[in-house]
Amino acid sequence: MNKCWLRCTRCKSVFDFRLIGKCEKCQGTLLVEYDMNRAHDVFTPTKLALSNNNTLWRYHELLPVRSLDSAITLGEGVTPLIRMPAIEKQQSLRRVWMKREEQNPTGSFKARGFSVTVSLLAERGIPIAAVPSNGNAASAFAAYAARAGIDAHVFIPKDCPPLIVEECKLYGAHTTLVDGKIHDAAAAIELRKDQMGWFNVGTLREPGRVEGKKTMAFEIAEQLGWRLPDVIIYPTGGGSGIVGMWKGFMELRRLGLIQGTLPRLISVQEEGCRPIVDALKGTENQEESITNEASNPTGMRVPIPPDLDLLVTILKETGGDAISVSKSEMDSAQRMLGTLGISSSPEGAATYAGLLKLTETNGLSGEEEIVLFNTSHAMKYSSVSPSAISKRQLADYMI
Amino acid sequence: MNKCWLRCTRCKSVFDFRLIGKCEKCQGTLLVEYDMNRAHDVFTPTKLALSNNNTLWRYHELLPVRSLDSAITLGEGVTPLIRMPAIEKQQSLRRVWMKREEQNPTGSFKARGFSVTVSLLAERGIPIAAVPSNGNAASAFAAYAARAGIDAHVFIPKDCPPLIVEECKLYGAHTTLVDGKIHDAAAAIELRKDQMGWFNVGTLREPGRVEGKKTMAFEIAEQLGWRLPDVIIYPTGGGSGIVGMWKGFMELRRLGLIQGTLPRLISVQEEGCRPIVDALKGTENQEESITNEASNPTGMRVPIPPDLDLLVTILKETGGDAISVSKSEMDSAQRMLGTLGISSSPEGAATYAGLLKLTETNGLSGEEEIVLFNTSHAMKYSSVSPSAISKRQLADYMI
Repeated sequence: MNKCWLRCTRCKSVFDFRLIGKCEKCQGTLLVEYDMNRAHDVFTPTKLALSNNNTLWRYHELLPVRSLDSAITLGEGVTPLIRMPAIEKQQSLRRVWMKREEQNPTGSFKARGFSVTVSLLAERGIPIAAVPSNGNAASAFAAYAARAGIDAHVFIPKDCPPLIVEECKLYGAHTTLVDGKIHDAAAAIELRKDQMGWFNVGTLREPGRVEGKKTMAFEIAEQLGWRLPDVIIYPTGGGSGIVGMWKGFMELRRLGLIQGTLPRLISVQEEGCRPIVDALKGTENQEESITNEASNPTGMRVPIPPDLDLLVTILKETGGDAISVSKSEMDSAQRMLGTLGISSSPEGAATYAGLLKLTETNGLSGEEEIVLFNTSHAMKYSSVSPSAISKRQLADYMI
Repeated sequence: MNKCWLRCTRCKSVFDFRLIGKCEKCQGTLLVEYDMNRAHDVFTPTKLALSNNNTLWRYHELLPVRSLDSAITLGEGVTPLIRMPAIEKQQSLRRVWMKREEQNPTGSFKARGFSVTVSLLAERGIPIAAVPSNGNAASAFAAYAARAGIDAHVFIPKDCPPLIVEECKLYGAHTTLVDGKIHDAAAAIELRKDQMGWFNVGTLREPGRVEGKKTMAFEIAEQLGWRLPDVIIYPTGGGSGIVGMWKGFMELRRLGLIQGTLPRLISVQEEGCRPIVDALKGTENQEESITNEASNPTGMRVPIPPDLDLLVTILKETGGDAISVSKSEMDSAQRMLGTLGISSSPEGAATYAGLLKLTETNGLSGEEEIVLFNTSHAMKYSSVSPSAISKRQLADYMI
């Protein structure tokens, strides 16, 4: 496999590759770097076009596993990127695409990160690990850990959608509900991990999850014929998807596979928990974000992202932005996507709500090519009761 | 596109291609035939290997649309086929694969059939259509109809899982719950369709759904490097998947792309509603199947398959079989698959339960290569209540 190492995004120090996420000198986020001269020969459009690997492991030459044989795969990645002609027409936009991340294993985009992370754990014989999560990361970790025979411990806020909690249990994860937010779940793990021998696979705590997420950038470029969209609207919580996509595009540019400016990366958050929006505006107001209870239990509710500085730097560097949408805007967007044949998670709906907000405020030129992300299925968040009465209410007719 | 026509599976009469499912002379099932001389030139492993279409429309040369531009696609097909090493080891089997059909749009294998069928409706400007369904066909039809701007009417037994009913509504389908089984839903459509102007897209009533399902056979062959497995275990209700896969393999054989005998097709049904099992044994006992209330509301519960003779012929011709499993065997199989990282529908779990039953009764040689089908996600069938109490019960700990 390709040689790789870690570099600090802050002080630029270099470290041998290992499963750490923070710089030992300055506590900056560490990201993986590869031998790009070698990658230049083995990571080519022609080789990829001939690959019969229809998972994200088709990009293994830029993933940090020791051997492709050790990849823990459930069939993740290479999700459809479909045109949304009805949105284009309605909003007078040139091209709008939807990246259907709900078609991953475990029904969410979180599968990507954990396929890579769990492969790294398995290669090193790490038998037990834990993750704090708003839900989908927990269930994805649980599934990949089950596949690898690793003991999974997941810590989730107690208001997490019940079906996602059920899914974690189905995959055999030790599941703890926490009376608090995701940082309280993280604190609960930190408190116990040494005693319990848990490896913490939380956001930006090891290199695998960002590397898995960066394959979204590789796929968009490959699916568009090694061409980039102008704008990507992405629901953002901890931010590993933004870091990953930015990193992926930068690697493609270094390899000469794409030219020009990177897509404007636009983070969407929910009103009530928008630390990235606040930080980008320079009105950091974390305390308010933490205490505001109006925000709903979605993957975007991360009051304290692990590296806000890095996110702000990336969004600014790409000419991007961070915007917030309300719960009712998300609900309305989810209903509209439904009538177009797309079952969207609240987070996925938030990207469409974000698009609508941007068109209203002239934040998009009609000529831009835009990619939205549907990160999961609507049904994972459902609160439909199983009683016959509610079913009768659901249907139009009962005969 | 490729020239095609219809041929009756019973009396062999030939008809021009149109949206009918039954022979006008003998009421036998009609299937599509293509100009195989032309297909020989355009449907080749090399052309497919170079295709950048990662949906079932990569096989468009053997699909009955007039133009690829008219395909109504949401990103269906090309689902992962993953090895299940834990099952191989545990059951002393050489190779076991899982076809992850839940990674289709709408979270189920039903997307395939309706992508093709709705494309056919859209090409002909048909504005309104109806389907009787146990749930997943209804939600898939609803999504594709939404994409195409076709008015969808779905008729579902009232004990259908509530999340699937909710999904139909999300996609904007007119949803009717029927106090009965799927044939009662079909009868309700027949009663109203002339007055309402509905086109009935029920199983084997038009050529599209079987054509969409046959792409499962194409994919298995292509994903295994134009080699076939020995056994396919498939959950069977109306039977369009069995007909479709058999048809797909026959077409590949006619094109010389695969050699040797076809895979043994093994249908799995649930005890309490097993008309195919009974018919294969020659102990047709439809009345018992219809009245037996012990069978659960899954896609396998089809008391009166539309062409039982054709199914029996296909299963016998491939050296296959039809077996039944109990609800508790399905539940147990679902839990076991969960601990291997797979969230399976009851129908998908039934294929694993079927494998276990076959190994117990020496119905499989250890040397055979086996494909199981996971047709949907466990969560679509969930009856988890949204109350906090049930969430507490779900988790191991609450802190």
